[in-house]
Amino acid sequence: MTTKYTIVFVRHGESEWNKLNKFCGWFDADLSEQGCEEAKNAGKMLQEKGFVFDVAFTSVLKRAIKTLYMVQNEMDNHWIPVTRHWRLNERHYGGLQGLNKAETAAKHGEAQVKIWRRSYDVPPPALEDGDDRLSSTDPKYSHLDASVVPRCECLKDTVARVLPYWHDIIVPTIKSGQRVVISAHGNSLRALVKYLDNIPDAEIPELNIPTGIPLVYELTADLKPVKHYYLADEAQVKAAMEKVANQGKAKQ
Amino acid sequence: MTTKYTIVFVRHGESEWNKLNKFCGWFDADLSEQGCEEAKNAGKMLQEKGFVFDVAFTSVLKRAIKTLYMVQNEMDNHWIPVTRHWRLNERHYGGLQGLNKAETAAKHGEAQVKIWRRSYDVPPPALEDGDDRLSSTDPKYSHLDASVVPRCECLKDTVARVLPYWHDIIVPTIKSGQRVVISAHGNSLRALVKYLDNIPDAEIPELNIPTGIPLVYELTADLKPVKHYYLADEAQVKAAMEKVANQGKAKQ
Repeated sequence: MTTKYTIVFVRHGESEWNKLNKFCGWFDADLSEQGCEEAKNAGKMLQEKGFVFDVAFTSVLKRAIKTLYMVQNEMDNHWIPVTRHWRLNERHYGGLQGLNKAETAAKHGEAQVKIWRRSYDVPPPALEDGDDRLSSTDPKYSHLDASVVPRCECLKDTVARVLPYWHDIIVPTIKSGQRVVISAHGNSLRALVKYLDNIPDAEIPELNIPTGIPLVYELTADLKPVKHYYLADEAQVKAAMEKVANQGKAKQ
Repeated sequence: MTTKYTIVFVRHGESEWNKLNKFCGWFDADLSEQGCEEAKNAGKMLQEKGFVFDVAFTSVLKRAIKTLYMVQNEMDNHWIPVTRHWRLNERHYGGLQGLNKAETAAKHGEAQVKIWRRSYDVPPPALEDGDDRLSSTDPKYSHLDASVVPRCECLKDTVARVLPYWHDIIVPTIKSGQRVVISAHGNSLRALVKYLDNIPDAEIPELNIPTGIPLVYELTADLKPVKHYYLADEAQVKAAMEKVANQGKAKQ
């Protein structure tokens, strides 16, 4: 299989809520200082390795938008078109949003938390009417029919929400020959990776995408993956993946 | 006349080249530290005064793009759609680009520099074939026919280049009810202000738009100006305008 297109995914750097070990989802947490550093490093790495982008996509959440801006700042390509879209948002964590992960684990048990975080088709508790965490009153989503705005998502729901944007917008952009970078979230990227690599439902929960390390996919003319790799050395990637996997565990 | 729409213009903060007193034009100079401060202050002011935007426009030059980002950062509206377009770029200063304004004034005389900077229809010397300042080899403009990419502009040329974007893209956006902010440059904004207020050719050279101070235009349903004002006190605006007016003068 011959590589025709190369695209790059970047998972945003650490957010203020990652740092507090809270379920974030659609809550619009800012990047932490470390998250900003991670984003800058991703940009430096892409610049060093000679990557060039013609167009960028990101979510409507500031941790992904800011990560992209910092990448662009390092690559000195501020001018390329950037499209923000809600379909690239993080998985919606419903009733878990805002809860400390360690506390939730202590209360519901690590096993339940792991199911909520990592099962493919078991959604967390849905937000109920009147919950001030509902996104339907957020101006970011005011153009959407309430039925489209999630109140919780399992990863399967996230896949179903992300893929229309991939097929309708990103695929035609790639096929037009434009070099694409996507700055997004752990689960929206996992949704894309699952689709691209045809990863079984049972295996995807164990796939961790580290933050702030560019993930490069080389694709055929039909957008089938030829190979993928991280722009970092193996030890760095392993350490970053372990950090993500440990986030759901109760603190000692 | 009744105000139906309100739009806001922001001229980017001081650039590294403003600081060096060089003709910048389409050269992609970065913001200076002071320019970043000005941009943040513009955002703070807009936030304090309760402005809300649904959509933003800027040029493909980083000093305007970064100014907009810093405004958004203060207003916490990272998520609104941002469109970058070359038609909002600064006036193209042709053969003057990269020259120190004070040196140019010392060489050609202040009067000639003032004519080049401030006359409506006298363009500066055009860039010649082989000049490495030609924008036609810049990836920002690679999608454009060479005949469209300027080699120098008088303000009249800038008006002719900016207005199609105003009429085709910005006007329909305003009329759709979306609240618009435009982060751009001294001369692309002057082009818009000239058009909106129907300022005579002979008067527009003397109109100075200060950097980093939001300029608010209230418009009727037909987009006729009802009034305009700066979001700053009078003394601040006056000082900022004088600073801009003095930029072409030879240093003592």
